[in-house]
Amino acid sequence: MGKRILRRSKTSKATAVSPANIAFIKYWGKKNSKLNIPFNDSVSMNLDKCLTTTTVEFNPRFRSDKVIVDGKELAEDKKLRVLNIIDLIREKSGVSYGVKVVSKNNFPSDSGIASSASAFSALALAGSVASDLTLSEKELSILARIGSGSASRSIVDGFAWWKKGANNATSFAAQIAPESYWDLRDIVVVVEKMKKKSSTEGHGVALTSPFFKTRQKNLQRRTLGVIGAIKKKNFLKLGELIEQEAIELHVMAMTSNPPIFYWNKGTVEIMNKIRKWREVGLTGFFTMDAGANVHVICLAKDVSKLNSRFKRLPEVLFTISNKPCRGTQLTNKHLF
Amino acid sequence: MGKRILRRSKTSKATAVSPANIAFIKYWGKKNSKLNIPFNDSVSMNLDKCLTTTTVEFNPRFRSDKVIVDGKELAEDKKLRVLNIIDLIREKSGVSYGVKVVSKNNFPSDSGIASSASAFSALALAGSVASDLTLSEKELSILARIGSGSASRSIVDGFAWWKKGANNATSFAAQIAPESYWDLRDIVVVVEKMKKKSSTEGHGVALTSPFFKTRQKNLQRRTLGVIGAIKKKNFLKLGELIEQEAIELHVMAMTSNPPIFYWNKGTVEIMNKIRKWREVGLTGFFTMDAGANVHVICLAKDVSKLNSRFKRLPEVLFTISNKPCRGTQLTNKHLF
Repeated sequence: MGKRILRRSKTSKATAVSPANIAFIKYWGKKNSKLNIPFNDSVSMNLDKCLTTTTVEFNPRFRSDKVIVDGKELAEDKKLRVLNIIDLIREKSGVSYGVKVVSKNNFPSDSGIASSASAFSALALAGSVASDLTLSEKELSILARIGSGSASRSIVDGFAWWKKGANNATSFAAQIAPESYWDLRDIVVVVEKMKKKSSTEGHGVALTSPFFKTRQKNLQRRTLGVIGAIKKKNFLKLGELIEQEAIELHVMAMTSNPPIFYWNKGTVEIMNKIRKWREVGLTGFFTMDAGANVHVICLAKDVSKLNSRFKRLPEVLFTISNKPCRGTQLTNKHLF
Repeated sequence: MGKRILRRSKTSKATAVSPANIAFIKYWGKKNSKLNIPFNDSVSMNLDKCLTTTTVEFNPRFRSDKVIVDGKELAEDKKLRVLNIIDLIREKSGVSYGVKVVSKNNFPSDSGIASSASAFSALALAGSVASDLTLSEKELSILARIGSGSASRSIVDGFAWWKKGANNATSFAAQIAPESYWDLRDIVVVVEKMKKKSSTEGHGVALTSPFFKTRQKNLQRRTLGVIGAIKKKNFLKLGELIEQEAIELHVMAMTSNPPIFYWNKGTVEIMNKIRKWREVGLTGFFTMDAGANVHVICLAKDVSKLNSRFKRLPEVLFTISNKPCRGTQLTNKHLF
């Protein structure tokens, strides 16, 4: 996997690049909200066109900690979330210097795609290497998870299974299959130009849905079904299950107290078109995270046809076509 | 209530007019699908602009039974559903003559408003009077229910509570409050020009939703809440509860096997607008039956403002503004 860092060097600067991921089985509800221990396993695919690059430098000359994302210094609350991970790295590595974190996303911030998964996984790898820590993939996944639950999955190459675990040491992601195993595609169909609403709101009220317990009771079966469908490359089975799961996530949101409604007219239009097109042999399946935009999962052969159809719909602002890709990687292209 | 028919006459022809109704608590799932015994109580308000008029004549000269709706003779399967009620009336009354049933709706058939509630309640009253039967309101509600579950509620004036009961004799609607009690309004916002999908499909799969049992367990509380809100004219409480209920109905549909999706882009646009306008003091609440169109419940003072806003939305085809009204009534204006 290339994640175990064997080389120790004197440099205190490191850069990592990491993808966002689309969840086929969703992360919804936390058992421990400080450590992001989830109620259930989740499953995802990395997105090769949605990347965050992060450079971390520890330096004795830095008098204060600085965090710059897409050219702007972070507000205090968001900065604290980053520094929480930096402090864990300091603790493990013994490095007590000031830090400079510079991070850049290559996908539009108004695309509704969460950058927290790619950002915290990149931070975990760049930060640990910059402090000369040697972490295994599992340890990186745990560290990334503490920053943002879904970041645990971006560490892994290709298709990831985040096992909920029972505590901090046992809640991490592992690989189902590498990115080259199955050339699935994810067309992100953007119907709402806005930052992703934080899913923190959703996690907070997840348990108030009267249907949450029933979901938990039945979910492992769907999860194992999705993993099996990936392993067997059974596209129709995968599609059926991810649509059920997407609907169920939004059912949880809409029936929580207070209810949360993420869909807009474009969301429903895309879902209805996808179903209609399937009847005439153009096969895609939808999934949505905690937002209005639709991720359409399809086979490589149907990407351009689907994409051009989406672009003709008045509700669609733009699309981003993704392949599965490697997880968090080191790079020499430092941002400063 | 004026439903008990005291006058017995020699005429074998009678005409009744009856309203559609909007359910605040929905009828979803049947314990007995032949008799339309529901899994749960439901609550509704009659709609004064959505009326069916039905004339029934029993005549020894009629060689065959004829059923004409909106100028067209009914197809065999729909005719059988009507003749099933006629046969029950023949059985009770001893009248064995041929029948002619002529029925007319004053609301567009493509409005998505179910005509079965108004039609079968009008049929129950016109048919029983034409056969010289004297039925109480309760007996009429039972007879109408066998034709179409929701028709049991249209028999009653104003606001109706259909208690599920345990069998044919105990499952009928009774009044919560007369139409004059509360000047609530229902603006039917039509976003899809099509006949209402039969809810029979939904009833058939209702029990396959993994969330159906939890709904049943919690529903009586919401039902009593809605009844209390009507009695106390507590508009905000009523609105909160009917939106929860509308979402839950569609949750049941979307999570059944196979799933049923009724919403279109207009449905979601109206729901989102309603929520947004509420934040700035224009207060309406949405509910939807098994279809895409939205019923917006509001107070009389806000009808014209809401209505003109709806008409400006490109997704809206037309609207119908309703007040609560009397239930099924006799009239002298025979259709033939």
